[in-house]
Amino acid sequence: MEKRIEAIWNGDRLIQDFGMKLEEAREGYARVSVSVQERFLNAHDIGHGVLVFAVADAAFAISVNTKVDAVGAQYNMNVIRASKPGETITAESKVVHAGRQSIVVELTVTGEDGRLIAKGQATALPLPMKR
Amino acid sequence: MEKRIEAIWNGDRLIQDFGMKLEEAREGYARVSVSVQERFLNAHDIGHGVLVFAVADAAFAISVNTKVDAVGAQYNMNVIRASKPGETITAESKVVHAGRQSIVVELTVTGEDGRLIAKGQATALPLPMKR
Amino acid sequence: MEKRIEAIWNGDRLIQDFGMKLEEAREGYARVSVSVQERFLNAHDIGHGVLVFAVADAAFAISVNTKVDAVGAQYNMNVIRASKPGETITAESKVVHAGRQSIVVELTVTGEDGRLIAKGQATALPLPMKR
Amino acid sequence: MEKRIEAIWNGDRLIQDFGMKLEEAREGYARVSVSVQERFLNAHDIGHGVLVFAVADAAFAISVNTKVDAVGAQYNMNVIRASKPGETITAESKVVHAGRQSIVVELTVTGEDGRLIAKGQATALPLPMKR
Repeated sequence: MEKRIEAIWNGDRLIQDFGMKLEEAREGYARVSVSVQERFLNAHDIGHGVLVFAVADAAFAISVNTKVDAVGAQYNMNVIRASKPGETITAESKVVHAGRQSIVVELTVTGEDGRLIAKGQATALPLPMKR
Repeated sequence: MEKRIEAIWNGDRLIQDFGMKLEEAREGYARVSVSVQERFLNAHDIGHGVLVFAVADAAFAISVNTKVDAVGAQYNMNVIRASKPGETITAESKVVHAGRQSIVVELTVTGEDGRLIAKGQATALPLPMKR
Repeated sequence: MEKRIEAIWNGDRLIQDFGMKLEEAREGYARVSVSVQERFLNAHDIGHGVLVFAVADAAFAISVNTKVDAVGAQYNMNVIRASKPGETITAESKVVHAGRQSIVVELTVTGEDGRLIAKGQATALPLPMKR
Repeated sequence: MEKRIEAIWNGDRLIQDFGMKLEEAREGYARVSVSVQERFLNAHDIGHGVLVFAVADAAFAISVNTKVDAVGAQYNMNVIRASKPGETITAESKVVHAGRQSIVVELTVTGEDGRLIAKGQATALPLPMKR
């Protein structure tokens, strides 16, 4: 794992606390998984929307930072199906545009059986270069 | 606090684990706050985007459920400024449309000093009535 | 072309006025093209964002209505590159979720040379059944 | 009207073709109206979603360009109610964030009777300075 990616991943307290796993990271792409633990359930006893967002956001951050230092600026997500207690959910982020002023990714979150849990898109802004 | 709101709030393991505080809940409106604890920091040592999303999502859920049983289906959010370690951030959700097929809310997250941290919009779908 | 699709396409005054072409329509999928005419240019002499949205929206409407009577309720789109005067741009819409309460599509708009012009996602709500 | 705003408005062929009217433009704010003409109706005989998007986009462009040269990069919109043949609809755009790397606006489209037709949010990127 590249040094910069390692620093982002290990230095992220929330990613560590949630027990996420970086499954794959390469130029413009990342895959991250997490288990739907009891503490991530909502009042309907299903996986929380925040957990679905969190795993997608982690994949987003890694996929973008394989290309350039950048921060998330805009997120759009459709949550389509419930995630189940105990299952492992996986997010993929794919960079579809890496411009000088913005980076755009496509996000997909799936369940253990491959069913679509969420689909989204997000925009990152490159960090201004240090001079 | 209305029984149904209380059940949603107390039964939500993630809301409880994050230490959120329900500041206000009335017909079509909710305000929720949370403290940017150390465990919510990212590798840049600022409040995590997931925390900003989480507090907005909690306000969203409560504001919608003051009207009708519903689940979040779509989220859009612009994250505008960083939240700082130790500060309390507050999310407001205001229902701008409550139709039979969808509910739309406007979301605002602000810092302790009132600066705008994030602005968003979300869509909920009413739960099918039990027969 | 199925009767219902034909009625939606031919009865849509804006689609007709813009000179759009329905390239393909099948279960859960549609492809629509349009030419970047002079009347669709903005002050920077490039294709208008509204034209990009319009061709994506037409593909969205057709792809959804191959499945069920529905109306567009929410749109998200990243506009990535400019469309050029005189070129033909093409939008694809693919249904990624067709539920009882909502339909979600993925939208892609490309230029004549295949470059990505816009990427989006949209949500439709089924029309209440007539009783 | 400021020179730069005038150039953007008058040079925009689609705005002119649609017969839009610039009702107000000041620092970080714009209001634009348009009439739901016959050519803007869809197959259900209501105002087209594209028209609603177009009037919001025009207000967006003007509100942002009162501050800085910029182009629209991302749009999110919930379409809530139908616009009616013959009525005048009005879009407001309010800049909620004007940063060095991005500008964020809040969009509202209302009918003649003041009812909410659409609510959205959009992101613009400043044009790189000419050197």
